Amino acid sequence: MDGHTTSSSTLDAVLARQEADFEAALARYDQLLRIQSISTDPAYKAECLKAAQSLADELTSLGFAARVAPSTGHPMVVAHHEGASADAPHVLFYGHYDVQPVDPLELWEADPFEPEIKTRADGSKYIRARGAADDKGQLRTFIEACRAWKEETGSLPCKVTIFFEGEEESGSPSLEAWLNEHGDEIKADFALVCDTNMWDRKTPAITASLRGMTAGEVTLKAASRDLHSGLYGGAARNPITLLTQILGQLHDETGRVTLPGFYDGVEDVPAPVLEQWKALNFSENRFLGDIGLSVPAGEQGRMVLEQIWTRPTAEINGIIGGYTGEGFKTVIPAQASAKISFRLVPGQDPEKVWKAFEAHVTSRLPADCEAVFLRRDTGAPALSVDVTNPALQACVEALRDEWETEPALMGCGGSIPIVGDFKRHLGMDTILAGFGLEDDNIHSPNEKYELESFRKGIRSWARILDRLAA
Amino acid sequence: MDGHTTSSSTLDAVLARQEADFEAALARYDQLLRIQSISTDPAYKAECLKAAQSLADELTSLGFAARVAPSTGHPMVVAHHEGASADAPHVLFYGHYDVQPVDPLELWEADPFEPEIKTRADGSKYIRARGAADDKGQLRTFIEACRAWKEETGSLPCKVTIFFEGEEESGSPSLEAWLNEHGDEIKADFALVCDTNMWDRKTPAITASLRGMTAGEVTLKAASRDLHSGLYGGAARNPITLLTQILGQLHDETGRVTLPGFYDGVEDVPAPVLEQWKALNFSENRFLGDIGLSVPAGEQGRMVLEQIWTRPTAEINGIIGGYTGEGFKTVIPAQASAKISFRLVPGQDPEKVWKAFEAHVTSRLPADCEAVFLRRDTGAPALSVDVTNPALQACVEALRDEWETEPALMGCGGSIPIVGDFKRHLGMDTILAGFGLEDDNIHSPNEKYELESFRKGIRSWARILDRLAA
Repeated sequence: MDGHTTSSSTLDAVLARQEADFEAALARYDQLLRIQSISTDPAYKAECLKAAQSLADELTSLGFAARVAPSTGHPMVVAHHEGASADAPHVLFYGHYDVQPVDPLELWEADPFEPEIKTRADGSKYIRARGAADDKGQLRTFIEACRAWKEETGSLPCKVTIFFEGEEESGSPSLEAWLNEHGDEIKADFALVCDTNMWDRKTPAITASLRGMTAGEVTLKAASRDLHSGLYGGAARNPITLLTQILGQLHDETGRVTLPGFYDGVEDVPAPVLEQWKALNFSENRFLGDIGLSVPAGEQGRMVLEQIWTRPTAEINGIIGGYTGEGFKTVIPAQASAKISFRLVPGQDPEKVWKAFEAHVTSRLPADCEAVFLRRDTGAPALSVDVTNPALQACVEALRDEWETEPALMGCGGSIPIVGDFKRHLGMDTILAGFGLEDDNIHSPNEKYELESFRKGIRSWARILDRLAA
Repeated sequence: MDGHTTSSSTLDAVLARQEADFEAALARYDQLLRIQSISTDPAYKAECLKAAQSLADELTSLGFAARVAPSTGHPMVVAHHEGASADAPHVLFYGHYDVQPVDPLELWEADPFEPEIKTRADGSKYIRARGAADDKGQLRTFIEACRAWKEETGSLPCKVTIFFEGEEESGSPSLEAWLNEHGDEIKADFALVCDTNMWDRKTPAITASLRGMTAGEVTLKAASRDLHSGLYGGAARNPITLLTQILGQLHDETGRVTLPGFYDGVEDVPAPVLEQWKALNFSENRFLGDIGLSVPAGEQGRMVLEQIWTRPTAEINGIIGGYTGEGFKTVIPAQASAKISFRLVPGQDPEKVWKAFEAHVTSRLPADCEAVFLRRDTGAPALSVDVTNPALQACVEALRDEWETEPALMGCGGSIPIVGDFKRHLGMDTILAGFGLEDDNIHSPNEKYELESFRKGIRSWARILDRLAA
């Protein structure tokens, strides 16, 4: 992606157009925030539809072929714009117009659906409302970038498909079926998702890897009924004890997972990437201190960022057995259970990991004991963006231009389901770039989005579209 | 206790008197069973008092100085008889006049308080009623033995104190305070307790050892709040994992408890006792098969009877941490807890064992983790009867005479609190002999007591009193 095809004067004009139009962009943002599109509560069904319709109408006005597409739940918004260049890549932009519920309402400084722009002592401003960041503010940065391009040049630099979902905050129950039926309609060369954070106020970020996961439960059974420990203790198998023995052997003393083959195919983070992470000046002390800890507890000899972004884990997420109420009961229970999940990184096969876990348990079962496994998912492999991918490089360069600093290539320890859905259903890679901050209070009272995130977010997308088309 | 002082013709006459009086003994038994002395339900308070009063009246009629002694709950019955010989030992007999509730009532063949004598095809008979065995039938065997002695000889062969409690089935809430205030009044040379079983239908038994216990809880705490395993997994300490690692090391691969010093002072069962246990023809297969197991799971190389009667244990009776509801939550919890109990044998100090457990946990705590311990008792040491004790030997001989077989010297893996109370408050040893059978359905619908248990139980006590006075 060497050689800019758009003259820098065109981009400058687009950016200037955006600046001139900023107050109007804020007004449009305000209008969307006033729509109470809480997806999880059926009482807000009409509001969800209203949000979808208003976005489709706006995209139509910007020259998109846009429609509100029904699903089994709240509708999708699908919009296409051919763009100015047939040679430029076709990009899909994803966002969601639904928001989290607002309770506890009493903790809000004002009505969550009456947006307000507040100014701090240092002159910085933010807009407070439910959805301000997650995801209405973020998705509007892209729409406003398209608007600036369209108004300045009459078109967009690339072919763009926009896909807005209305059920992200309630677990996307209709998404899978919709993608199965209509996925082809939104298939592009790659996807852009604006639902993530910057590294910090001054440093934009691209999330370049997501850990995968597989999870399930194991129940160990011994005697046919609960036993009195006075009568049977010493002769009867205690399945809680057995469970602690078996699960207590999941890690060695250096914090590594002991399952045979667990690390097969797992590669160390390339040295240049590690160097870049070191340069981020991530404070392990602050990260751990915020949760009352001081020492990284995982695999020894790894940076915390490595541990949480690119190393696989085995976690016991729940355990129960015997008497757990008030007081005491000298019972030897008939069974004990645990919920286990594995965070996975590239190179690991969820199926193989789960089978290795089952083998770890069954190979340690003594006489008279049985293990019953319940798989809780079909396993999501880890995802990573090829950092040499030209589209990703274009995004990096555009962000560097706008923010005048090197963007962080972050990992994400959790999973963002839509990324896996795009990969699985449409074979599409995703680039995650967003302008939220850690303190935006998403999902909490007094959610906000920085006006600087909104303004420079729009400018970032305008630059990215330019770079992608180059 | 060589040399019978009572001529065998006196004992024979006492036994003959008992046989002649058997129908009347059954009628008195029937009357007591009709009293609905359910201690746990306040609705039956008057019935409990009625049972106590009827027993005190009866004992008065037998020449005892008897009274209904108030407590903070249901009253005690206390009765003294000086006996014929000042040289004979002073024995305390303990029983309880209260019974378990009767629900589920619909599973009873008839009204639980309308006793009925039933005859089997083989001619054996039993009496069906709540309390038939536990403990009204058992305590009446001793009263009827006293009656036969009194009616035949005008006195009892020993000094006898009788102590009946009315809250055994509801946890004896008033006992401790009562013993503190009035314990001296019932102090004797040793106690006889009739609330246990025979080895089998043909073999009487004395319970010669009871395991002790100490129990408590441990809670491991790590982060200051529950964490998302995607964001923190790999860097943050998981207290469930830690708990499994620490508790999973409580036993070695041979089933022995690993706490340092745990077996200090614990002695192997003397070879003659082991030989006697082997001669009992205890079926390990049946014992384990009844609860769905086939292989003894405790310390290797020990008989099951040894494992459950005379070996100490460490059991996890409950464990809980993280998300334990339906479905899955990828949480790393802030804490995880377990309830632990240790069954103790002679030579072990409950205090020392609990401290060793605390040290086992705290010595394995990594940085940032805290263990909070909650002791659930003050620790009950194990109790064992000196098998060379002449009083015990007298009981063994009397039982052998009556049943024409060698009595079993059993251990009991659980604890019988009154035995510890007598030891702690009154410095008194207890001999446990009873005539119940495993299938008596105590605490269950259709409780029963064999007429043979009742008849030969009376005769056994008549012989024991004779032997003790010898």
